[in-house]
Amino acid sequence: MSFDRLQEKIDEMRNPTVVGLDPALEHIPPHILDKHIAEKGETLEAAAASVVGFNTRLIDALCDIVPAVKPQSAYYEALGPEGVKALKTTIDYAKAKGMYVICDGKRNDIGSTVQAYSTAYLGAVKIGSTEVRPFDVDALTINAYLGSDGIMPFIETAVKFDKAVFALVKTSNPSAGELQDLQVRLGESPVALRSVRKDDAPSWLTVYGAVGDLIKEIASDTIGSYGFTRVGAVVGATYPEEMERLRARLQNTFFLVPGYGAQGGSAKEAARAFQRNGKGAIVNSSRAIIAAWKKTGGDYLDAARAEALRMRDELREALRHD
Amino acid sequence: MSFDRLQEKIDEMRNPTVVGLDPALEHIPPHILDKHIAEKGETLEAAAASVVGFNTRLIDALCDIVPAVKPQSAYYEALGPEGVKALKTTIDYAKAKGMYVICDGKRNDIGSTVQAYSTAYLGAVKIGSTEVRPFDVDALTINAYLGSDGIMPFIETAVKFDKAVFALVKTSNPSAGELQDLQVRLGESPVALRSVRKDDAPSWLTVYGAVGDLIKEIASDTIGSYGFTRVGAVVGATYPEEMERLRARLQNTFFLVPGYGAQGGSAKEAARAFQRNGKGAIVNSSRAIIAAWKKTGGDYLDAARAEALRMRDELREALRHD
Repeated sequence: MSFDRLQEKIDEMRNPTVVGLDPALEHIPPHILDKHIAEKGETLEAAAASVVGFNTRLIDALCDIVPAVKPQSAYYEALGPEGVKALKTTIDYAKAKGMYVICDGKRNDIGSTVQAYSTAYLGAVKIGSTEVRPFDVDALTINAYLGSDGIMPFIETAVKFDKAVFALVKTSNPSAGELQDLQVRLGESPVALRSVRKDDAPSWLTVYGAVGDLIKEIASDTIGSYGFTRVGAVVGATYPEEMERLRARLQNTFFLVPGYGAQGGSAKEAARAFQRNGKGAIVNSSRAIIAAWKKTGGDYLDAARAEALRMRDELREALRHD
Repeated sequence: MSFDRLQEKIDEMRNPTVVGLDPALEHIPPHILDKHIAEKGETLEAAAASVVGFNTRLIDALCDIVPAVKPQSAYYEALGPEGVKALKTTIDYAKAKGMYVICDGKRNDIGSTVQAYSTAYLGAVKIGSTEVRPFDVDALTINAYLGSDGIMPFIETAVKFDKAVFALVKTSNPSAGELQDLQVRLGESPVALRSVRKDDAPSWLTVYGAVGDLIKEIASDTIGSYGFTRVGAVVGATYPEEMERLRARLQNTFFLVPGYGAQGGSAKEAARAFQRNGKGAIVNSSRAIIAAWKKTGGDYLDAARAEALRMRDELREALRHD
């Protein structure tokens, strides 16, 4: 099962880190961009070729110590169709190097359209009699605002192709609480939240708590060997109290944890995302690793590897793995 | 201003319709796909070429009677990078024919990443000293779950490049209410929703109502000549009561209305999205127009045009424009 494979890769390397491949052009060392501009001009093609060069060498430098990468779709779309081609090249390269690949797209829509998104990232499209897998990542991030019929097609495709998704529950950004922390009046809701049984609802039930309960319920029959359903949760390290509540309530949910490092979350805070046995979560770092060269001034690959090792050791320490 | 231009196009054609370009392969007449498969094999390239052929001829057939198109990103992503190239070709073609183009991507993320999405769809990326516009649509749909700092970069880019966004408020799908209809306990929220003043909060305040209030407040200084802010709202025709409440509360908000036709919303229900002067909304139809040939059995362009004219006349009737 998809999250079993992820957990095993994490255990092998004793490193619950995912590197966010967010190749904003300002994170790419100028000599790489300059080389491609000299060849292709100041074009989206040159920028996309720079992204591919940057990413593939980063993957080479990290794949023996980091189990997973998380390309953030926005940075590829920002380079147009050529950028999306660079996303696909990056995905294929990381998978060939044995890495688990999470596409961070936060996709969402009504059921029929979500079927198309799940085909794009997790499944296959049939052209004539040939099945082709358009992006074929291991997992995709999704947004649950549209409710269960905007999530079910992802689950069905994930089951069929042995994939997984991570739904946004409590995000890491400063304004996350504006909607996510609103407290919910369960008894008077015009539509009963199917997933929340009134007798089981905690007094603190919030919008993010309701999202957590929803993904828990609708994925409950997809549990793999390590006890995780196919619908993980995105829970920011910047909100450790909320994280602890969610960890206690969502015992079969794999957590993807943004907000460590550049956004301010510490390793100790991120550690609250894990189960007592040290499993069930993976912590993301993007800029702090891929743009580490900006602080060190040295080679970007050396700088990225050094920061990835530092983060690994800090997480090991926080989890008392060592 | 972006929504002024949209309103003027609607007024010129007396038709508040946007055609959803959702080219699932089963909606494309087989002879188109067969031709491209004969040339390029059973490949994503053949499928993407079919989409371009299908869309461009549809645009030719509709551009004198329909003011806007809404390509749904999922159906292009489902064909991989080649499909995203077909999306870009479709956008460029529709704009060249004078149509207003809404990319339906429902994008969302934390602020720094939303900056990349807004660059991709509404703005420009700087490569060396050259500014390139990656997709350059008139408006993009977004999801507000991450709160104001996940929306502000869209607004800033929209102001700079004269674009607009539509935020999901109340979606048209059956499970929309699971989260969106939850009632909110304002007084006890752990974080005060900045946009909701307690003395102004209606007794029925729901999650979707809070999203509406949020986009109303953060876009309040972006009002154009026709009185609309740059942040419109997606409000489904399938929930007419909620629509009426939102229309009354969000007087400066342009509504994008899905759910008409194939999803069950009537013209009379969709008409509640409009202001009393008949302005301020546009109603989407996708399958019912682009796949009309499946019902009629005839030429797909004739069938699409006939259905678009029928819908236009039905909306005119419901709005008593005639």
